[in-house]
Amino acid sequence: MRLAELSKRSGVSTATIKYYLREGLLAPGRRVNATTAEYDAGHLRRLRLVRALIQVGGVPVATARQVLAHVDDESLGRTMRLGAALWALPQDPEPDQADPAVAAARAEVDRLLGTVGWERARELAPLSPVHRSLVTAVAALRRLGYPVDAELMAPYAELMQRVARQDLDLLQSYASEAERVEAAVAAAVLFEPVLRALHRLAQEEESARRFGIE
Amino acid sequence: MRLAELSKRSGVSTATIKYYLREGLLAPGRRVNATTAEYDAGHLRRLRLVRALIQVGGVPVATARQVLAHVDDESLGRTMRLGAALWALPQDPEPDQADPAVAAARAEVDRLLGTVGWERARELAPLSPVHRSLVTAVAALRRLGYPVDAELMAPYAELMQRVARQDLDLLQSYASEAERVEAAVAAAVLFEPVLRALHRLAQEEESARRFGIE
Repeated sequence: MRLAELSKRSGVSTATIKYYLREGLLAPGRRVNATTAEYDAGHLRRLRLVRALIQVGGVPVATARQVLAHVDDESLGRTMRLGAALWALPQDPEPDQADPAVAAARAEVDRLLGTVGWERARELAPLSPVHRSLVTAVAALRRLGYPVDAELMAPYAELMQRVARQDLDLLQSYASEAERVEAAVAAAVLFEPVLRALHRLAQEEESARRFGIE
Repeated sequence: MRLAELSKRSGVSTATIKYYLREGLLAPGRRVNATTAEYDAGHLRRLRLVRALIQVGGVPVATARQVLAHVDDESLGRTMRLGAALWALPQDPEPDQADPAVAAARAEVDRLLGTVGWERARELAPLSPVHRSLVTAVAALRRLGYPVDAELMAPYAELMQRVARQDLDLLQSYASEAERVEAAVAAAVLFEPVLRALHRLAQEEESARRFGIE
């Protein structure tokens, strides 16, 4: 398809598409002559992901470029390719090592990983910004005096493992590896608000079941 | 305890405590003479919640006052007291009714509530900002061309229902109704980052189990 058609089908203006092309967020089309290029379904899919990251996820252009470079890096294994793309998204800063709440939180997270048998997450921990986010979030609660420990988190971790299985089953239903990695990134940015809203709605339902509506 | 002791035990400066007292976020202490007031465990707990809302949750002072007024309103039933407090937190704006993606998203959410049997959430829907957030999040995905429908959401909704049961079991372990409502608000603001990090960590673990680490 031509640029005009790509714009129409994606709902992204030609000016914005040209900007994404210049910024290297979208691969150039196949040149058919000096002034015209041809785009395909891969361009349409990538444009959807770029919009998801920038317009919905609020990810800066430079970060989006970095995420997409990992998405496209076929030299990486699948876990690393998924991980590298997700890890390039905006992350929490390194927590303050001298803070005793951080040390206690880290100890509880480590104990949790042992309890639920997440051996690989434990192995990836020194590298993983996700592990760091968990330590930061637990430290924030403990600092306020809320007793969040391995025992309290374990049933939640087990439920989240089921959610993650569901995520990966869905991901594996995509035909190509490129689509799978793109879908994983889109899910991390876009599906989390759905999950959070479902969680709150479930609380509403469960609360009304237990205590009635009034 | 006196103001100095309350400050020491809560880690909040006396100047900030005085500001919260002036703003009506914290009830006055029991006057013992013209210049001294006495504070109790309830003040300490409330101060923890105020800090959670304002300092960690980034909730504006006026909103925090509104949330706390609902927490304290004993005339409300339990579901409404919980709901009113949570609903007073910052919410998504009303989605654009004329947008076909919003109409389609609303239809899928309604179909979902039927599929999973969330009768009460359906009854509360016209009032509920949580229902509105779900419609908005689903519409954003559909607008980008991701086929999020009732079938895709149903297994997630069922898992989130188990999470909500876990939440309410935990909540019911608190001794007083005031503590339960406060804990529900703190959980909505503070526990969500823990849950999100657990979800991402579970994805890491599950991905490494299925595809190996490399």
